[in-house]
Amino acid sequence: YSAGYSPNAEPMWTYFTAVAGQDGEVDAEELQSCLTQSGISETYSPFSLETCRIMIAMLDRDYTGKMGFNEFKELWAALNAWKQNFMTIDQDRSGTVEHHELSQAIAVMGYRLSPQTLTAIVRRYSKNGRIFFDDYVACCVKLRALTDFFRRRDHLQQGFVNFIYDDFLQGTMAI
Amino acid sequence: YSAGYSPNAEPMWTYFTAVAGQDGEVDAEELQSCLTQSGISETYSPFSLETCRIMIAMLDRDYTGKMGFNEFKELWAALNAWKQNFMTIDQDRSGTVEHHELSQAIAVMGYRLSPQTLTAIVRRYSKNGRIFFDDYVACCVKLRALTDFFRRRDHLQQGFVNFIYDDFLQGTMAI
Ligand SMILES: [Ca+2]
Ligand SMILES: [Ca+2]
Ligand SMILES: [Ca+2]
Repeated sequence: YSAGYSPNAEPMWTYFTAVAGQDGEVDAEELQSCLTQSGISETYSPFSLETCRIMIAMLDRDYTGKMGFNEFKELWAALNAWKQNFMTIDQDRSGTVEHHELSQAIAVMGYRLSPQTLTAIVRRYSKNGRIFFDDYVACCVKLRALTDFFRRRDHLQQGFVNFIYDDFLQGTMAI
Repeated sequence: YSAGYSPNAEPMWTYFTAVAGQDGEVDAEELQSCLTQSGISETYSPFSLETCRIMIAMLDRDYTGKMGFNEFKELWAALNAWKQNFMTIDQDRSGTVEHHELSQAIAVMGYRLSPQTLTAIVRRYSKNGRIFFDDYVACCVKLRALTDFFRRRDHLQQGFVNFIYDDFLQGTMAI
């Protein structure tokens, strides 16, 4: 008896349209309210505005700084997968995971990175040696966005790209 | 009668050592207290933790996530120059500047970017169409850090660089 829509997408549409207003798109502040209202962070702290900005940048290929409902659904699916990972690691629900656990999670997601790069990433997203949910998600969003940006230029899938300065900054400054 | 040190560096040394503790270096949280105590933000909001993290990443070439006093002095000089620019633009001290004013400031700093890239950058660092001091500084720090990273690989100064995926992520994920 479902009217052709996914049962999970419907409550999302309600939150989304409520904050999106007339233009049907959300900016970073609106995305933050939308995600907070949805309760996706559960007992973890709600997403920071900075994390919401890079969530938008991840999917914002036309650089309008806003997100429509289709992109929002794509984000929603990614967030739920990342949250599932995080909760699997953070079994005591303390809200934080350890350095080596983030390294493992990144490897499990399929990113193949040198130990040096992994160390630099893990340190960057830690506070006093621990990784909080919001920072973990920020890390996942950036990893995916920067990898997508790189792959879109790596036409022959060779693992290297010749970047012009302006294009390099356009892709990396927004994320 | 100056004992060989710059008169401006001395109070900085006091703030810095007070928060740095035994290891003589500051992490992002300590840098945030140090800059707040220094009063550099004046009537503007103090720097966010996120901005302090990218300040450290800008100068952290060995990826330890910490900053010594020499790097701190380098940061201090850059911050004062950026603040001077911002205050020149924000003449009414409202705490925010407009889109076209940030574009001009970036051009004045010597960055030559396409209009499309400038637009993407300005939108990314705005809140409701205005740019706050903290976001302006975050933008300046990222521009400088990403440009330094690019230039260190552009050995022949040709304006393009062939990046391997792992190196690309190592340089961009931390910033
Ligand atoms: Ca858009
Ligand atoms: Ca835990
Ligand atoms: Ca103003």
